[in-house]
Amino acid sequence: MVNEEEMIVTPWEVRGKIDYEKLIREFGTQPLTDELMERMKKDFGDLHLQLRRRLFFSHRDFDLILDRFEKGQGFVLYTGRGPSGPVHIGHLVPWIFTKYLQEKFHTNLYFQMTDDEKFVIEDEMALDETTRWGYENALDLIALGFKPENTNIIFDVKDIGHLYDLALKVAKKVTYSTAKAVFGFQDSTNIGWIFWPAIQAVPCFIHAKLTGENVPVLIPAAIDQDPYWRITRDVAQKLGYHKPAQIHCRFVPGLGKGGKMSASEPETCIFTTDTPEQVKRKIWNAFTGGKPTVKEQRKTGGDPYICTVFQYFLYLFEEDDEKIAQLDEDCRTGGVVCGDCKALLTERVNRFLKDHQKKREDARKDVQKFYLKA
Amino acid sequence: MVNEEEMIVTPWEVRGKIDYEKLIREFGTQPLTDELMERMKKDFGDLHLQLRRRLFFSHRDFDLILDRFEKGQGFVLYTGRGPSGPVHIGHLVPWIFTKYLQEKFHTNLYFQMTDDEKFVIEDEMALDETTRWGYENALDLIALGFKPENTNIIFDVKDIGHLYDLALKVAKKVTYSTAKAVFGFQDSTNIGWIFWPAIQAVPCFIHAKLTGENVPVLIPAAIDQDPYWRITRDVAQKLGYHKPAQIHCRFVPGLGKGGKMSASEPETCIFTTDTPEQVKRKIWNAFTGGKPTVKEQRKTGGDPYICTVFQYFLYLFEEDDEKIAQLDEDCRTGGVVCGDCKALLTERVNRFLKDHQKKREDARKDVQKFYLKA
Repeated sequence: MVNEEEMIVTPWEVRGKIDYEKLIREFGTQPLTDELMERMKKDFGDLHLQLRRRLFFSHRDFDLILDRFEKGQGFVLYTGRGPSGPVHIGHLVPWIFTKYLQEKFHTNLYFQMTDDEKFVIEDEMALDETTRWGYENALDLIALGFKPENTNIIFDVKDIGHLYDLALKVAKKVTYSTAKAVFGFQDSTNIGWIFWPAIQAVPCFIHAKLTGENVPVLIPAAIDQDPYWRITRDVAQKLGYHKPAQIHCRFVPGLGKGGKMSASEPETCIFTTDTPEQVKRKIWNAFTGGKPTVKEQRKTGGDPYICTVFQYFLYLFEEDDEKIAQLDEDCRTGGVVCGDCKALLTERVNRFLKDHQKKREDARKDVQKFYLKA
Repeated sequence: MVNEEEMIVTPWEVRGKIDYEKLIREFGTQPLTDELMERMKKDFGDLHLQLRRRLFFSHRDFDLILDRFEKGQGFVLYTGRGPSGPVHIGHLVPWIFTKYLQEKFHTNLYFQMTDDEKFVIEDEMALDETTRWGYENALDLIALGFKPENTNIIFDVKDIGHLYDLALKVAKKVTYSTAKAVFGFQDSTNIGWIFWPAIQAVPCFIHAKLTGENVPVLIPAAIDQDPYWRITRDVAQKLGYHKPAQIHCRFVPGLGKGGKMSASEPETCIFTTDTPEQVKRKIWNAFTGGKPTVKEQRKTGGDPYICTVFQYFLYLFEEDDEKIAQLDEDCRTGGVVCGDCKALLTERVNRFLKDHQKKREDARKDVQKFYLKA
């Protein structure tokens, strides 16, 4: 039995109460310091709310990427998605940030849709299902406003012809022993899953292969994906490429208590295809920092720091820092109660989704424009 | 230290004195019985010398393939080559037999050129080298007279787009535990090699995938490759396909003492690109069943059964059974000595190679006609 509060963070599972300081120590990454924040503010002219509010909190070699940016040297962005179901709002968070970075850095994005991974990992999923989800999920990405001219969506199974040679070169340098240590593979793990980390490494080098520009990638992603690129960092230079840099975000909490938003608990996450009624119901049932009764809460206040509704305002739905500070204060002092916040969040989410769902449908005709340019 | 005579047979290594009866028991295959020989003679009208002389000696489900043939039901052929260097005459033996089977069965052949395998297995080989050897080796196959309309050469790296989905489906059903037990993988094995058995399984199902005709394959190959398809046989039906059938040949001995012909000992094997002088020298230095002096051999005779030169007549260069019987007798009684046989074999090999080398060069313009039809 795993203690309910024990922290489990692997690329496939995030559970328990997350201690981000401890993750930085255990994963051996660097904190995103005030100094780096200042540099970004200077370089970018502003700071995205996900930076201001420390959703992004850790990195590897992000300072070297800023060096390159400041010197006018090239690099590209890489992130991705394991398509095993519909996209929820938690998935959009690093994608929104990636779009911000792309606009500030004026650079290409490689987005990997890992239908092969989800097939070998998920017992019950068929390959045509994960592939289909890949195309569905791509609509959500495109709906965020990415531009086809500098965005390449890699669909692993479709694009394997461009990936396989690099994957073999990575795979040859990774022993089972290393893969086992990093990912916890066991004798019962299938050989497709064991090979797969080599495929996840490929987008780190694909720009160099396809264009001849041997530049590093910067990967914005949740910190649970770090182990993949730890292996990539080990082999990159042996293959004549740069080590990938990373900038890591926290997990966006689900509407339930603890852990990250997970599609395996559908009532705790808002899918981009949810109806207004579904959104209302899910938010209404959300875990908050409120008190058992309105009367008590008016008197003693709530705790926004454990409230999932507050975190949605913080990370996505309230851009204005003063309003966030006011909401924080009002919650603590009983000036607002949970019903107020839930109603406001429902309105904001539904307004966002109405627009997103329209753009998402419009994107169906554009998917091919985002195919890997090779 | 491995005893010089200890038998080692894996897909990557064949060493020591080979006991074929023991291989049938250990691998759990079936002997190619007199009854099957009779059926083939009836079905084919004749028996290839490699059958008459029992170079092919073992099988899995070959009787079911004959059943299908006799009932007019379809099946296809599949064999292949790991391209890590030039082709030698030992490699041609099962290919010549495959061509005979193809002509008798009037069926398609899928030939897998495993540039990916050789790259992940051979420490010192670059991927572009194994790929280049794949195209060079294809010339030898084509030179034997295969026809482009019913022969598909699969170049793994080039064709991975057609192979990957099936490989993933196989890989998902093979645990590391199984792969380790069958192939002897260790912690130091790289993850590309561990995945690779899934790629070798794919040509068993590719005809079904590409054409919709769900028919079995028959694989003519040396028995050391059996473990790959043992795994394939385990997963085939779970994926909705037929188990692959096999017909196994012995190893064609090198010109040195013991083991199979191996490109890693170049002086003991005749490459298809060797010059007449190289052929002469290698045959002149061959291990035979002769005596230390001509005088002694004239008096007490030699032993054709340990003689590598005799085996070349037996398996490739003397079609006439009466002449083989005569040579056998003459050797045993001292009627011919090693110099006679070496001179005759040199002449036959060089005559064959002169023709083969011309056809091999002519094949350069035809390789694309043999590409996988997909």
